[in-house]
Amino acid sequence: GKVLVVPTDGSHWLSMREALRDLHARGHQVVVLTLEVNMYIKEENFFTLTTYAISWTQDEFDRLLLGHTQSFFETEHLLMKFSRRMAIMNNMSLIIHRSCVELLHNEALIRHLHATSFDVVLTDPFHLCAAVLAKYLSIPAVFFLRNIPCDLDFKGTQCPNPSSYIPRLLTTNSDHMTFLQRVKNMLYPLALSYLCHAVSAPYASLASELFQREVSVVDLVSHASVWLFRGDFVMDYPRPIMPNMVFIGGINCANGKPLSQEFEAYINASGEHGIVVFSLGSMVSEIPEKKAMAIADALGKIPQTVLWRYTGTRPSNLANNTILVKWLPQNDLLGHPMTRAFITHAGSHGVYESICNGVPMVMMPLFGDQMDNAKRMETKGAGVTLNVLEMTSEDLENALKAVINDKSYKENIMRLSSLHKDRPVEPLDLAVFWVEFVMRHKGAPHLRPAAHDLTWYQYHSLDVIGFLLAVVLTVAFITFKCCAYGYRKCLGKKGRVKKAHKSKTH
Amino acid sequence: GKVLVVPTDGSHWLSMREALRDLHARGHQVVVLTLEVNMYIKEENFFTLTTYAISWTQDEFDRLLLGHTQSFFETEHLLMKFSRRMAIMNNMSLIIHRSCVELLHNEALIRHLHATSFDVVLTDPFHLCAAVLAKYLSIPAVFFLRNIPCDLDFKGTQCPNPSSYIPRLLTTNSDHMTFLQRVKNMLYPLALSYLCHAVSAPYASLASELFQREVSVVDLVSHASVWLFRGDFVMDYPRPIMPNMVFIGGINCANGKPLSQEFEAYINASGEHGIVVFSLGSMVSEIPEKKAMAIADALGKIPQTVLWRYTGTRPSNLANNTILVKWLPQNDLLGHPMTRAFITHAGSHGVYESICNGVPMVMMPLFGDQMDNAKRMETKGAGVTLNVLEMTSEDLENALKAVINDKSYKENIMRLSSLHKDRPVEPLDLAVFWVEFVMRHKGAPHLRPAAHDLTWYQYHSLDVIGFLLAVVLTVAFITFKCCAYGYRKCLGKKGRVKKAHKSKTH
Repeated sequence: GKVLVVPTDGSHWLSMREALRDLHARGHQVVVLTLEVNMYIKEENFFTLTTYAISWTQDEFDRLLLGHTQSFFETEHLLMKFSRRMAIMNNMSLIIHRSCVELLHNEALIRHLHATSFDVVLTDPFHLCAAVLAKYLSIPAVFFLRNIPCDLDFKGTQCPNPSSYIPRLLTTNSDHMTFLQRVKNMLYPLALSYLCHAVSAPYASLASELFQREVSVVDLVSHASVWLFRGDFVMDYPRPIMPNMVFIGGINCANGKPLSQEFEAYINASGEHGIVVFSLGSMVSEIPEKKAMAIADALGKIPQTVLWRYTGTRPSNLANNTILVKWLPQNDLLGHPMTRAFITHAGSHGVYESICNGVPMVMMPLFGDQMDNAKRMETKGAGVTLNVLEMTSEDLENALKAVINDKSYKENIMRLSSLHKDRPVEPLDLAVFWVEFVMRHKGAPHLRPAAHDLTWYQYHSLDVIGFLLAVVLTVAFITFKCCAYGYRKCLGKKGRVKKAHKSKTH
Repeated sequence: GKVLVVPTDGSHWLSMREALRDLHARGHQVVVLTLEVNMYIKEENFFTLTTYAISWTQDEFDRLLLGHTQSFFETEHLLMKFSRRMAIMNNMSLIIHRSCVELLHNEALIRHLHATSFDVVLTDPFHLCAAVLAKYLSIPAVFFLRNIPCDLDFKGTQCPNPSSYIPRLLTTNSDHMTFLQRVKNMLYPLALSYLCHAVSAPYASLASELFQREVSVVDLVSHASVWLFRGDFVMDYPRPIMPNMVFIGGINCANGKPLSQEFEAYINASGEHGIVVFSLGSMVSEIPEKKAMAIADALGKIPQTVLWRYTGTRPSNLANNTILVKWLPQNDLLGHPMTRAFITHAGSHGVYESICNGVPMVMMPLFGDQMDNAKRMETKGAGVTLNVLEMTSEDLENALKAVINDKSYKENIMRLSSLHKDRPVEPLDLAVFWVEFVMRHKGAPHLRPAAHDLTWYQYHSLDVIGFLLAVVLTVAFITFKCCAYGYRKCLGKKGRVKKAHKSKTH
């Protein structure tokens, strides 16, 4: 079949890429459509890259990204930080929306996409543009995602989402909440709804313009036949799901490769203490010097060799046991038996590699869902969370020693690992199966719940409840009236008898 | 591992049996615990049969069953029929409850079960006794079921169950309902709740007595780690599910075998017209003569050869094209390319064999969920439903000719068949995998939603909503009071100014 892929850049792309490799190996023709200017999506031999240009240079892109990543380490006032983040996000979403408008109005490209008659669109709906494109080309869509903000994943699948035990994004609640935490869990989405509307509404109007009729954001995301979630119920709390939701968490652990000599040498040289892997992910290239030195200081205090993936300036106090590398084979290193701990920003890829390989974590969440991921792993006893801004060198040192020496962390992560890897089908095979399923059957209409065809008050049966209440009240009212009438009748009779009696006795 | 199986008799047992065969083949020790008096659960070489006696003879059992099956064909008044059915059901549930009390108070047997230290209890919770036993032995449990009345499957899994688009058992609604159908869908469970309570409450009190503390029916069914449902979303309407629900619909289609010579001969003799398979299931042994003759008359009017599984008296007007057999290899016959149609009572096993083999149906639902199954298949265009009491010979003849000659039925059932059989894992393998999973990990606690630990008003966030409402009302009230106070203050001032002005001008 023919697969049109509209990916989201950054780490989102890394795991989707593995699925494309497999699809290509199974004989499918894969075309990746993306912005000319991007971070990771480069030409490879298992897909055809189609890019579209917009008036935005690679410098502008890098500067925007750098601004975003630098903001992680600023220790300014919360409100200042929040408004700066909002400004960066607003800037980013304007640029992404503009690129979407240019894509959808690029008639030559759209004609070409139509002409190629793709069988399926595989996309990460984190940016809604791809959902508009899939609906516009009226090709069945498969969504490939960790989650989308504003609960659009729940709305798009008509999946119940009780706020009493399902922690909302960014709340860092667990599934067992106190009363006030449940209040926070209910208020958070309300507070974010303005932001959600601001970011998503432009795509609804863009789609309404294209389709010449009212199209809502929920319409856009409801177009997907199957949702492939990079999650599972070892990492996530169990919650209601829908039949067209498939869980492929840990897909990025597939395709392990042997370590290169360089890294084998580091491990062999680490002696009986083994190594610690340290990476804050693809988005962090520079840490403020003072913070970097505090980190370097703590790393120097443990007997393990630390492999630190860091592209920023080398801290002057770097100890001998700490080796800086520009890149490291993270999953393969974590798979080595001599790896004692993993210092991570708790992105979902890193956390899954930790689970797959059973390595306890010290987590320094930076942005997005990383705080929530860290909270989950902490609740399950698989690691310790530090606030990267407030933590001291000592905090990091203690956290590392705890995670390495306190056996409970290793036991917990090993238990999670054995639960996670005990499955009937591997995540990568499951993802490929469902993309092929949607191609074979031109979608999955039998998995689409009738809830999509109900209004919100019909869905919650408010009209039925109202009707039954009206019936009950009417019946009660009539019964009351009859009783009252009957009562008066009886009373009236007794009254006349009494009067007659009185007149006799006077 | 060691598997304790507490099955439900009748067709429920037939598919569970296949799973036990596989578990035994994979080296597990399987012990089946059942009443001495039963229909199908006999000694076989892949499990050890342990029976327990109660003061109930095989005759009493057969007479009770016969009374139940005969009631299908009585054409008495609805209320009469309902009360007779209730009496039979009440009788049955009393006997089953009594056998449960005797089982749980059979100290020698319970001691033996404890001593054997089973790794898992595999049971069909249709009768709640096994759920009490599993909890009592505190062994992880796997439920193997089609469904249980009174929505206990939804309550036991804490699975949302919106009545706006999920048809309730026995309503024969589809997932697209009119307003009045939605009213019916909401009222039905309320009407049945008395019956539900009457049947299930004795098990709750039995468990409370055993555990010396309050145990509810929902507690009993919540004990299951994994629920294996004999359903899927080709036969059932898509609805919310929970992570510990696994769908193994079509498990009974596995292990096809070549036809015996006898049946091969019937098919070869049927010429180009092929055959029709007719069976009203294991529960129907006798059809009233008049009805049987009407059926035989209709069967004689089609060119196909009809293989009719029937153990009752041979209708005198049986045509030459109709062959009565005591038993037939239903699944294997339906799998033969010359099979044109299947006349069935729409039990879930028969419907799945029809789906697996792509054979359109004429459905005569008799009791339980059969009406709902028939409605689903009819909505999906895979067959025609007849009311077995009211149908005439002509109705049956027309239905058969429609289903055989109108291509749309074949196309629809073939489409359902291709969707159903396109899955990453076969249902039998999936069932065995999850029984083994629960044995390996001593349950599946990571799949247990936190909803189990919430009261009903916490689950629906009524306390949070109440609190927020109170806050909003308080704020509104205070604001109103302030404004009113401010307003009076301003008004008061103006009033004094006016007065002063007036006194000046007079």
